[in-house]
Formats: sequence, structure tokens, C-alpha cells
Amino acid sequence: MNGAHALLSTLGANDVTVCFANPGTSEMHFVAGLDDHPELRGVLCLFEGVATGAADGYARVSTRPAATLLHLGPGLANGWANLHNARRARVPLLNIVGDHATYHARFDAPLQSDVVAVAGALEGWVRRVADADAVAGDVADALGAAAGPPGRVATLVLPADASWGEVTAPPDRWPAAPRRGPRAPDAAMGERALARLRAGRAALFVGGAAVGAEGLALAQRVAAASANRVIMETFPAIVDRGAGRANPERLIYLSEFAISQLSDLDTLVLVGARAPVGFFAYPHVASELVAAGCDVIDLAPPGTDALAALSLLADELGAPAFVAESGEVPAAPHGELDGAGFAAAVAATFPEDLVVVDESNTGGVHLFGATRFVPPHRWLTLSGGSIGYGLPAAVGAAVAHEGRVLALEADGSAMYTFQALWTMAREQLDVTVVVLANRSYAILQLERQRVGVVDAGARSQRLLDLDDPVIDFVELAAGLGVPGWRVTTGEDLTDALRRSYATPGPSLIEAVLPTGFA
Amino acid sequence: MNGAHALLSTLGANDVTVCFANPGTSEMHFVAGLDDHPELRGVLCLFEGVATGAADGYARVSTRPAATLLHLGPGLANGWANLHNARRARVPLLNIVGDHATYHARFDAPLQSDVVAVAGALEGWVRRVADADAVAGDVADALGAAAGPPGRVATLVLPADASWGEVTAPPDRWPAAPRRGPRAPDAAMGERALARLRAGRAALFVGGAAVGAEGLALAQRVAAASANRVIMETFPAIVDRGAGRANPERLIYLSEFAISQLSDLDTLVLVGARAPVGFFAYPHVASELVAAGCDVIDLAPPGTDALAALSLLADELGAPAFVAESGEVPAAPHGELDGAGFAAAVAATFPEDLVVVDESNTGGVHLFGATRFVPPHRWLTLSGGSIGYGLPAAVGAAVAHEGRVLALEADGSAMYTFQALWTMAREQLDVTVVVLANRSYAILQLERQRVGVVDAGARSQRLLDLDDPVIDFVELAAGLGVPGWRVTTGEDLTDALRRSYATPGPSLIEAVLPTGFA
Repeated sequence: MNGAHALLSTLGANDVTVCFANPGTSEMHFVAGLDDHPELRGVLCLFEGVATGAADGYARVSTRPAATLLHLGPGLANGWANLHNARRARVPLLNIVGDHATYHARFDAPLQSDVVAVAGALEGWVRRVADADAVAGDVADALGAAAGPPGRVATLVLPADASWGEVTAPPDRWPAAPRRGPRAPDAAMGERALARLRAGRAALFVGGAAVGAEGLALAQRVAAASANRVIMETFPAIVDRGAGRANPERLIYLSEFAISQLSDLDTLVLVGARAPVGFFAYPHVASELVAAGCDVIDLAPPGTDALAALSLLADELGAPAFVAESGEVPAAPHGELDGAGFAAAVAATFPEDLVVVDESNTGGVHLFGATRFVPPHRWLTLSGGSIGYGLPAAVGAAVAHEGRVLALEADGSAMYTFQALWTMAREQLDVTVVVLANRSYAILQLERQRVGVVDAGARSQRLLDLDDPVIDFVELAAGLGVPGWRVTTGEDLTDALRRSYATPGPSLIEAVLPTGFA
Repeated sequence: MNGAHALLSTLGANDVTVCFANPGTSEMHFVAGLDDHPELRGVLCLFEGVATGAADGYARVSTRPAATLLHLGPGLANGWANLHNARRARVPLLNIVGDHATYHARFDAPLQSDVVAVAGALEGWVRRVADADAVAGDVADALGAAAGPPGRVATLVLPADASWGEVTAPPDRWPAAPRRGPRAPDAAMGERALARLRAGRAALFVGGAAVGAEGLALAQRVAAASANRVIMETFPAIVDRGAGRANPERLIYLSEFAISQLSDLDTLVLVGARAPVGFFAYPHVASELVAAGCDVIDLAPPGTDALAALSLLADELGAPAFVAESGEVPAAPHGELDGAGFAAAVAATFPEDLVVVDESNTGGVHLFGATRFVPPHRWLTLSGGSIGYGLPAAVGAAVAHEGRVLALEADGSAMYTFQALWTMAREQLDVTVVVLANRSYAILQLERQRVGVVDAGARSQRLLDLDDPVIDFVELAAGLGVPGWRVTTGEDLTDALRRSYATPGPSLIEAVLPTGFA
């Protein structure tokens, strides 16, 4: 038995059932081993950023880690941006990165590089496997590190000779990763939070594990009992939404407005979220978004039992039962499409049991409001800010989820990892992709103003425009085996969404929006 | 005047005239500055790997550095694989990587990461700019480091506030990067090489700066005078080839055969190349390719004046004048296309003044032989082994080169950085792209055998096949604004090549080859 089999066996023993793979020569023994391990589903991706983003999406939906299989330093680097997003989403994720045989490294062959340094910059967990006998234990350690809580990106660097080498003493049982529950919340911090909530002018700032249906309902009860607010972090990894569920305010992306949103608070109680900071710095705008003097209480940092913390507050405050608001779903839109019409079409056609992967950026500003009362669903956002996450995450979400996945994708962002569509076609994943084609890096037109650039000339504008040439997303999708339709009106988008939901497998809708930042 | 203007002015003062850009918020002042710096051509790329690969291709053809403009850690990571290739090609290259404002870093905003660590793993030159006043000097230092010789990847991390901050004391003249010539070759090493060449059973192993037309002619004269061989490294950055030029043996990619190719040598004299090692390690195959006991003399390591070293040898040996061989160009092929027919079609239609970017991998094994006597040209190869270099490098080569660029691209590799076609269309670059569609990671089918996997089952085979679904490269190209044609016969490929060469701007030919490793 070789190291690759020990690896696959240990994955199996720990219920890791999916590997998003882009293999090379140094990973051939792992690939060959799949023939003997039918419990592991190998999903081929044409680019490593698809594999890592898919593992992120899978983990968000299933709360379990997937493995990736990547080839040497460049392969890891190609997947790095979406690993950054996974790190910020605090999901469990295991990278298996093949490397040159241990004895080959000193020859500095063309593909040699410092894989451990590239992985280390992810600030997760990294280990280079010494030999075939170490593989099983290292995999268990890696999965333990990945599980956290909070979840982390764990990277196992697997030299080719550790993969092909003989395991001299196979264990009786493959090792299980250590399982730890979340830490109990700090009692003194709970007392402090309680006192401050009773004083008023306070908000719970929820994110991470606190934005599941249960956490949000608890938070709303706590707020109702103490006449305070609930605010959700801007980019939660995955949030439960829709009819019958709590609907907190969302922290506004733009620092200027977020500062105003938080300005009258004396207290911000963090529950599963980190203290709010500006996504970027801007001249003459504060990085910290809470007012000076606002008491920020870190009640349940990531890795802490956020539900226990919220339950305690609810009990102490004698909070009333959760009552869901009710309201209307927008009607299907008519006429030429714009951002509001796009959101209305999504809402009006919203099916049961949907998972939404949202990388709609500027085109999607109306979405959250429009979908307030649609059927219950889960919603993923761009937690780490590195664009190109949406289509890969939709691949992983669809592998984890029985029902349909709706990927809402800005055109600029779509082009980073468009290869994901091929994997959707190959695996016949039930994904509806909507590309919001405003033919511009619209967010940058806004950001350019925000950083103080007022006189934009033609040469600089050209670096923000995507309309020369126009990208034809329907043809791109067709080239990768995914059928698609282009729409320019509300009626056609509504029809196309219904058609896509009714069609097994993936399909793509290019929704043409007004050019630039609408 | 702000730091961004100091940056652009210093680039201008040092004749950096192209920037391959994929900007974000933190780079908006640089982008805005382009309006005042018409001497710098900003070329927008839809993915960072295109920008870095383009800078590599540009540097190989022009021997000058281009700048890239990248956004934070994830942007640098997305460009890292092609920077690895540039590092191995030893080209000069300057990355400008925007980062959060210095005072913002401590808040660990979502896009915060250790940019310097990611850049450091490239083993080139890295510096984080302190403030606007430091910008100009740092740019000059970076360009000096990039120039070498040998060329290096230099990365300047530019915090947003160094970009928008005021330069308090603009210099009278923008600083010039230090310029250094190559080091003189070591005289004692030259004596030793001369003695060993006179003893026979020796070869010059040439690469880097020694595979220009002059270096190859010198090497051939040296070999002729001493009855020895000239062998070229397998993947030179750029080599002068074609009628009237020397045509050395090329070191075979497969270690088993390379070991045999080098087995009867007592001496290998390295000129601009590093000692030959296996691209990968394989069970029971040596990593070092020269025979035990072969004397490896490092006459002109990278950064040394390889031409001076070769001239000295030629003079000492009283070498005869260079005589070019002559021979036939293959006729245009007929019938169903295969690897030999593909190569013949390329050769039969070969125009004057072509630059070839070769990432044809398994489909291109017949190319070097077939194009031996075509018109003189330059040929770029995959020096670092990280696939996805070809289409981006063709972008950069076409920006640097007046004439046409021919990009020969394997289908699997094409999918890593296919976004390059959009930039070809936007800039109307004269690039002919031929995608060799064997619908398989054919190289891995070969490599799988070489690492000793003999029984491949359906589950593992599926991770090496690209035929489900078939990728339609003509539709993909059309989606990005590039016209294309699919061909399956020698006649049609020949016609399509001629048509493409006669059509200004980019076009793509999908050449369908037998599936798998032919």
C-alpha cells in the first residue's frame, strides 16, 4: 500500500467525500487511487481557482470540508485567491498540494518553488508530509485543524515520493481527526453585554455562525426585548433568509454610509462577527466604522458558541417569542432591464429550496430588499472580497445541495474563473447562472470617485470599461457546454429564469443592464 | 504631485512604456495618472495571470521590462504562476501591487493579506513602499533589480496612501535605474572548458543568453572546431531559429531519453544554462541527467557574458566560420490531421518575421523538426513549466513585436488563461492562435505511465479527459471578440493559417487532433 492509498483511506474514514481536482504529474498516484476509492468523488476543474472556490462553496453549504487536489506551487497560487475568500469565510477546507519528490527538491527543477511559503501566506495550517508512513496521521491532523472551530484552510504538501512510497506499517484503523465543539462564551463578557443592552442605544452585530435561522431569530428576540437593533455583517459566508425568518439590517458596504448607520450606537455587541472596518481606506474617511466612544463588546468571537451566547441573553432578558414579519414579493418586472427590475425578476420567480451564490456586486444592490419575503433559502456572499468566487462557489454549492443553485454574477468578476461552467456541464449540476452584464468594472467607477479622483480622462476610463469588445457570455457558455440566453427586458429575464429552473443541469442567462454604474 | 505621478514619471524616465493592468480600488490613483502620462500604454487584462504572462512575453521579445498593475494579495496570487515562468525565464519584470493604506492594515479588512510573503515566494526582489516620497527611488531600485543581469521579477508593494499622498520634495530629475552589464566569464573556468573540449566527448549545453543567433553560431563553431556537440536546454526563454541559423540538438524532455542522450559525455560545458535535471522525479529514474563522472563546467552562469565566453573558446580553438545547414521545408499536409500534419502545416505556411509562442505540449512534438528551415524567427517556450503561459505571453509578444505572433496552444493549457483573447481583440494584436484540441490532458496520460501507474480505471481516467463536454474553442473565441475556425484536415489547417496571417488582428484556429496522447 502506498501513501496515496493511505491518504484516500484516511479521507474516507473522516467522511471527506468530494475532491475538487486539477492534478499534474506529481499527483498521479492520488488520481490512480481513486479507482480503488469509489467513496471519494473526484470533480475535475479546468483551473485551480475553480477547485478552491468550489471547496469553499461546498463547505459553506454542507458545513463539511472538501479536499482540493492541486499541482505544486503554481497550482496552489492559482487557487490562492479563492482560498483567501474561504479563509475569510472561516470554512473548513483541505488542500492537498503535490510537490516534487523530497530528494528531487535540491535540484531546483523548473517547477520547483516554495510551496510552504505560498500556503503559509494564507495564515491557516500547513504541513509538508515527510514520507508515506506519515501520510495518514498528517491527514487527520490537517482535517482537525480545518474543522476548528472556527474553520480554517489547511494545506498538506505531499511530495511525490510520499505518495508513491510504501506504507511500512498500515494502522489497524485509519486515524480520525480530533473533533472539538465551539468554546463556551465568556460569562463576564455576557454580563457586560447584558448591562449595556439594557442601557439601550445598542446593537447586536451578527455574522458567522450567528446568521443561521436560529441565531438570527435569537438575535431578533434579544433586540426586541431590549429595544435595540440587530445589524448583520456586510458579507456573511452563508445566511438564512426569506419568509418566516428574521431580517436584520445589513451593514452598508460604503464606509461613509456605514459610519452614519452606526453613529448613534453607544454599544456594539459582536456575535460571530468581527468589529466593522472599512473595506478599503479612503482619504478623509475613518477606517473604524463605529463612533469614537462606542463600546465594542466581543461576546462571541469566531470559534465561540454564538447560539449559546444569544440564548443566554434572550433568557436573561425574558425575550418574547420570535415573530416573523410578513410582506409582499415584488411582481415580475416589465420593460427594459435595470438593477431594480433584475432584483424583481429574481424575487418573482424564486423557487423553493434555493441556494443563492451572490457575486452580483454593483448590479445587485436591490436584491436583498426584493427577496425579503421569497421562500426560505440560503445566501452566500463574497466574504473575502477577492472577485472570481461566485461561479466556482456555485459548483461546490451544487455538489453539496440537493436542490437548485442560483449564481448571480457580475460580468467583470465572471471572467476570473469562467472555467467553472465546464465543470457545471460535466457534472450536470443544477445551477442557474445569471451574468449581470453592465459591461464595465462599475464598482471601480464608483471607487475612483470615492478615493478622490474627479477628472477621469479617456485613457484611464478605458481601464474600467468592458465594452470593447463586448463579451458574449452566451457564446462563452456554449463553448463550455452550457446552454444560455441573452435578455434585455424584465419579461424575458422572468421567462428565462423560469425556463432555467425547469431545466435539469446548468444554464446561463446574460442579463444586459445599463452600461456602467447604474 | 502625488505618489502615483512620481511612479508614472519614474517609469517614463526609465523607458518603461507598457503596463499590463488589472486594477482595483487601491490602484485608482495610478489609473487616473495615466491620463497625464500618455507615454505609458495601459493594457487591460481580465485576469491577473494574463497581465503577468503578457509582461513575461513582452520582456522576452523586447529584452525590456514591462510593468504589471495588480490588486492586493489575491491579485498577485492570480498572477503568480506566470511570474514563476518569468522567474525561470530570467526576464526583467516589474510588478506594481496596490495594497491597503498603511494605517488601514492593522484593521485586518477582508482583503488584507501578507502581500510581501506571496511576492517573496517568487525569490526575486520585493519592497513595500513607505510613503509618497519614497516612491521614485523605490521604482528605480526595483527596475535595477529587475534588469539584473540576469533578469528578475521585482515586486513593489504600493500602499494606497503612498499612491495618493503628496510628494513633499519632487526631485529635479526622476531617478534612473542602475544599469549593469553582464559579468565577465571566469578565466580559469574558460581554461578548464577549453582543455576538456580538446579532450573530446564533450558538449556545450546552451541556454538563456546563449541561444540568440550569435550565441548559437558561436557555439556551433566551437563544437565544429573541437569535434564536440551543442545541446540546447529543453525550454529556452527565447531562441533564434530557422534558415541560416545554427540548429543545436535539444535536450529531450523525458528523463529516460535525456539520460541516454547525455550518456556518452565526459564533459558538459554550461553556457547560459543550468545543469540538466529531470523535470519531475520518477521512481527508479535519476534526477541528474548527466552520467556519474561527467565533468559539468559552469562556464557562463546566468548573468555572465555568454557571448564573450563562447568567443574566447572559438578564438582559442581557431574555429572555422559559421556555416548554416540548408534543407527542405515540409510540404503542406493532406488528410486527417495528426501531430505530424499539424507541424507540416505550420512549416509550410511560415511567414517572414514571425514570433512563435509555443505551449503546444504533447501535440507539438514534431514542430521543431518541421520548422528547421523555415524563415528566420524567434521561438518562446514554457521555461517554468506552469501551464497557462502561452496566450498571455502571446499578448505581450505582440505588443513588443511589429510583425505577427503565432501562439501554439494545447487545449488543456489554453483553459487556464483564455481571457487573454479579449485583450488580443481589444488591442487588435496580430496574433494567430492555434489550439491543439486533443481533448485530453494527454501529457498526464503519459506521465501516469511514467510514474508507474499501469492499471488505469474509469474513475481516474475521467480526471485526465477533456471530452465531456467537448470544449468549443471557436465559440469561446467569438465570445471574446476573436474570429475563429475549426479544422480537422491538413488542407483546412493550411488554408486557415494563411487566412489568419492575411487578416489584421487576432484570430483563432481550433485544430482537432486524435484524442489523447498521439
